[in-house]
Formats: sequence, C-alpha cells, structure tokens
Amino acid sequence: KKILVIPGDGIGQEVTTWGQKVLTAIASNYRHNFTFEEALMGHVAIEATGNPLPDETLEKARRSDAILFGAIGHAKYDNDPTLKVRPEQGLLKIRKELGLYANLRPIKLFDELLEASSIKPEILRGADILFFRELTGDVYFGEKKRSEDRNTASDLMIYHRYEVERIAHKAFAAAQTRRKKLCSVDKANVLEASRLWREVVQEVARQYPDVETEHMFIDNAAMQLIKDPKRFDVVLTANLFGDILTDEASQIAGSMGMLASASVGDTIGFYEPIHGSAHDIAGKGIANPLASILSAALMLDISFGLKEESSRVIKAVEATLRQGYRTMDIANKHTPNDLYLSTDQMG
Amino acid sequence: KKILVIPGDGIGQEVTTWGQKVLTAIASNYRHNFTFEEALMGHVAIEATGNPLPDETLEKARRSDAILFGAIGHAKYDNDPTLKVRPEQGLLKIRKELGLYANLRPIKLFDELLEASSIKPEILRGADILFFRELTGDVYFGEKKRSEDRNTASDLMIYHRYEVERIAHKAFAAAQTRRKKLCSVDKANVLEASRLWREVVQEVARQYPDVETEHMFIDNAAMQLIKDPKRFDVVLTANLFGDILTDEASQIAGSMGMLASASVGDTIGFYEPIHGSAHDIAGKGIANPLASILSAALMLDISFGLKEESSRVIKAVEATLRQGYRTMDIANKHTPNDLYLSTDQMG
Ligand SMILES: CC(C)[C@H](C(=O)O)[C@@H](O)C(=O)O
Ligand SMILES: CC(C)[C@H](C(=O)O)[C@@H](O)C(=O)O
Repeated sequence: KKILVIPGDGIGQEVTTWGQKVLTAIASNYRHNFTFEEALMGHVAIEATGNPLPDETLEKARRSDAILFGAIGHAKYDNDPTLKVRPEQGLLKIRKELGLYANLRPIKLFDELLEASSIKPEILRGADILFFRELTGDVYFGEKKRSEDRNTASDLMIYHRYEVERIAHKAFAAAQTRRKKLCSVDKANVLEASRLWREVVQEVARQYPDVETEHMFIDNAAMQLIKDPKRFDVVLTANLFGDILTDEASQIAGSMGMLASASVGDTIGFYEPIHGSAHDIAGKGIANPLASILSAALMLDISFGLKEESSRVIKAVEATLRQGYRTMDIANKHTPNDLYLSTDQMG
Repeated sequence: KKILVIPGDGIGQEVTTWGQKVLTAIASNYRHNFTFEEALMGHVAIEATGNPLPDETLEKARRSDAILFGAIGHAKYDNDPTLKVRPEQGLLKIRKELGLYANLRPIKLFDELLEASSIKPEILRGADILFFRELTGDVYFGEKKRSEDRNTASDLMIYHRYEVERIAHKAFAAAQTRRKKLCSVDKANVLEASRLWREVVQEVARQYPDVETEHMFIDNAAMQLIKDPKRFDVVLTANLFGDILTDEASQIAGSMGMLASASVGDTIGFYEPIHGSAHDIAGKGIANPLASILSAALMLDISFGLKEESSRVIKAVEATLRQGYRTMDIANKHTPNDLYLSTDQMG
C-alpha cells in the first residue's frame, strides 16, 4: 500500500510522525508492505513554493492508496484577513480534487477519559456518535465575492441534489450497521439550501425503512449534543454545520486531541485528526499524538479493510490511557503537573 | 408606555401571558402606566390571514414603545420543506422592518440551577456571557434561489461594512461596562464575508483600546464555550453563528427555558425568550414561563430604563428558584416527579 504523509502546519508536524510510526509497526508485525512518501501542504507549502497545494503534492496524492494528514493554518493569515493566498485553500482544494465528499467523524468516549470532559460523566457515559459531514459543497465552495470598494463580501451557500443524495446513502447505510437511528441537521426553517437538503434526505430515508430518521435544526442540535449526547447515533449534516458540531462534540470525547476523521468519496481515503494546527503550542512537543494514531487506525480499517490491525491500535490506545498516561490536554486530576507526557513519550 | 404583545405559536401563547402579567404587576406597584395591545404573527397569523406578518401587526408594532414576543414555528412546515408561506418569515420580516440589528443574549447561570445543566458545576460557576448576535444580515437575508428543476438551492451569505460596524460599536461599548473582554467569532479562514467581518472588527477595536479583543473561529468557539465558558465576557458574532452558539450556550444557564433576549437597533426594542415554539409540549401547560418573565425584565431595563423595576423581577425569579420551585425543564434531582410546577403555578 502506498501511503502519502502530509504533516502540514503547526503541531501537524509533531503528531503525524506518530501516526506513521504506528503504521510502520503494524506493517512489520502483520507482514504488510506499506511504503511512505511525504508532501507539503498549507503554510509550509506557501513558504516553500508560494502555493498551498503544490502540483507535486496533488500528483503524489493521486497515485497513493491513502493519505495521512496532520493539520493546517498559521496565525499570520488569521491576523491578516486581507492576505490572498491562504493555507486552508490547500486543504479545501485537495478535498475537492480527490472527491472526498464524506467526512466521517466518530465520537466515542474512552472510559478512561470520563474525567477530562467538562460534561458530567452520567451524561457522557455510553455516548457513541458517528458524524457524516458533507465535505465538498456548501458555503465552503460556493462563489466568493468582494465588491470593488471592498465594503461588501459574500459567499454562496449552495447544494445540488446529487451531493446530498450520495452522502445520505453513505450515512443511512452506516446507520443500518449501528443502532439504526439517523438525525439529519439543517436550518430548513430559514435556508433554501437546507430545504433542498431536507427534501432529499426525506426521499433517501424511504429507501431505509429500518432506520429511524429525525430532522433537527442546527441551533437545537448544538444544544441537544451537550444536553443529551446519548440520543444521537448517526448524525448527517452539511459542511459548515458539520464543522461546528464536530468540534463541539469533541467535548464528548474528553478532548479534541483524541479525535480522528476519515474523508472518503470516489477512491482514495484521507485521514486526519479533527484538531487544528494549534500554533499556540506548536514546537513545544506537548501535543497529543493520539488523534493522529487513531487516524492511522481508521485508515487501516476503512481504506485497507484491516479490521484486526485497526482494533489492535485502538486497544493499544485504551491500554495506554488505562495505565494513566496523559498528555496535558487530557489532564487527570490525580496526575501531578510535571508528570504529563510529551508528544514523543505518549507516542 | 405602549407595549405590543405577540404571543406567536406553540408555547409562545402559554408563556407570554406571564411576561405580560409581570409587567402589569410592576406597573401597578411602581405606578407606571403600561397599556397593552395584542397581535398575530407566525403560524397563527397564517391560519387567520394567510400572512405570517399581517400589515396590522406591523402597524401596531411601529406605534408601540416595546414588543414582548413569544415564539414561532409549527411542525407542519418543518415536515414539509416545499411549503412557500412559512411562520419564520414573519419573525425575519419584523426584525428587518423594525431595524432590530442587534440581538443581545445574556447568559448567566442562576446559582440555584447549577445542577440542571449537563456541564460540571466547577466549569459553570461564575460564567457570565453577553452575546451580541447580528440579526438583520447574513445568509438569513441574502438572496435565496431554487433552480427550475428544483435540484439546486442556494442562499447568499452577505455582509456590508456598515452592518458589522454598528453592531461592533454596540458590543465594544457593552464590553467597556463589563470585564472589558470581547471575542469576535467568525470563519475567516474560509469565508469572504467573515474576512470582511474580521477586518471591520479589527478596525473598530482600535477605537476601544481598553477592551481586550480576540478573534476565534466558529468551530473552535463552539468547543471552547463548553470547555471553558468562563473565558468569555462579550461575544460578538454574525446572525447564523449567533443562532447556533446562543442555543448551545443555553446549557450554561441550566436550561433554554431560562433565557431571554433583547433585539434592538434603530428605535423600538423587541423582547423574546430564546427558546422556540416547542410543539412537542405546546398546550400541555408545562412550559417554563421564566424566559418570558425575564424578557419582560430586559424590556424594563433596556427600553424603559427602569433598572430598579427590572432587578426586582430578576430577584423574584431568583427567590422562586431558591425556594425550590421547578418546572420540568429545570429538573432538580431532589424534586419528586409529581411536584413539578405547571406554567401557571410557576408564573
Ligand atoms: C482548517 C479548516 C478549513 C477546516 C474546515 O473548516 O473544514 C477545519 O476546521 C476542519 O474541520 O477540517
Ligand atoms: C425561528 C428562527 C427563524 C429563529 C432564528 O434562527 O433566528 C430562532 O431560532 C431564533 O434564534 O430566534
């Protein structure tokens, strides 16, 4: 299997090494043949080539079987909204070019981390949500405009029927293998794009009569997710709403530093932590590598069908947490401050 | 003072009575002269006149000094996204027509409700956030389109400089009277409208050097709000992001049934609970009237400058909670199920 590693920016560099090392260990343990290439994307790519997604990276991506990605973004661009070339354009372009229209974000609490969350343990225990976030449409990709006097700016929030249909089928099929509940989140009381979304999901739902379907407005969903996370099984939503809800849901898993995601679609799978480049802690060697390691586990499962190898990785993470090892973000009240592990120790 | 009461749909009917009764009690206690008119909006207005915002309602609104509103929406429209005339159009239109561009949503936990939240008490204690949600722009009001074959739908997310400026000034001015911290929430790493938003907020910030300003992406904000609500003082954000964040933030206040909001702008103030019409419990007489009562308190303070009267209402709510009175949504573990108060008992 040919694996492309794109560490990207900030802590992406530090954590992705560990995702890759875990893949290497699995390959040698199970006698698989994984080969690795590396490529640039984001701020580091702009610095090196002027382009957030160099052609070379895209070519390498197209001839790989799966991609392990780190994170993207840099304070420089966040502080100056007038800059034209921006790291995030690289990530958005590779998602579009590779047809990665479905972003799967499984949210499941490791029992050992019950304490790390700001939410009460009795609310969290047993929560297990699989998000399907649409990834190549919505206001992310609709036309952007700035008036000549620069005083008016707009982005088009737009959906086509086929975009909703294809991800809805993936989400309903996944629900059938789980607790058979699907919640579609939109803002159909205000947005035309959401009304199309709801119409199409209602139609697709009829083909999966064994799945209990519910429609919820995004504002209510943002509240219910915290109030009663256990009510959700599969959540299906648009690109922007999915971005917001899944970051919020990280509190259900105890920490953002634990969450992996898989972006799939036409052919190649793309695996990444849901956390960002975290420039405030980048370079300090304290980032949690578990999200990258769990991204590797998702790759083994989804792209390569290596279920046993994948669950071996997840079990290793569980065992590590059970023994009390913690990076700073998954603080345990009983761990003295100076006993937090570094990225490399945790890896 | 002329007060227009618009109960609207669902539980709006049941709770708004109580906001009005409290205003009447204040008037008689403090010898103010409040006169009340009533008007239709939403589903009830569609049923009666075919129009979610009848001209008569708008006329009454324009000649009032302040408006007490309930809630809007009905399952019929939620289940059928193809319906052309919808209750929410009434609410959006009145916001636009009255120039209610700033929606203030104070989020503060009543100590007595620490237990009612899904978030840990130590995370919540002391949280006190004032949201400024822009209310007459964004993807709510941009052009909506549906292709002739009905397979493509879009909404324009659009902002003009002046729209950002005027609400930013209001938010910074409020921050000066509080803990002098302002967090502006956007998605400037992806959206052009957010980049304009951030540019303008950065400019306005320079005129308030005593306020510490921070910019945060919406996905991160949705997470931080739950992880560490105490880090926020004033939060300034766009219409759609504000809709989502404030509903989410209701968990900080223990329950949605406690939260009031004020929409202000050119002249008239508009006061409403942040909860919706809740058709699942409408007509049962179990809705919590406190959000409507607290909306009345906001009206006394913001529209009429009656600070003492306003804080008298808030203190009455506090005393009621302290004595252990609870509606179902603010459940107290120690209250037996059959002791929950009805809407009228709580009122
Ligand atoms: C970095 C940013 C463009 C990206 C997004 O909004 O999609 C990130 O937040 C994510 O969720 O992968
Ligand atoms: C009912 C709906 C149109 C409204 C909104 O989205 O603004 C509501 O959710 C609110 O927050 O006031």
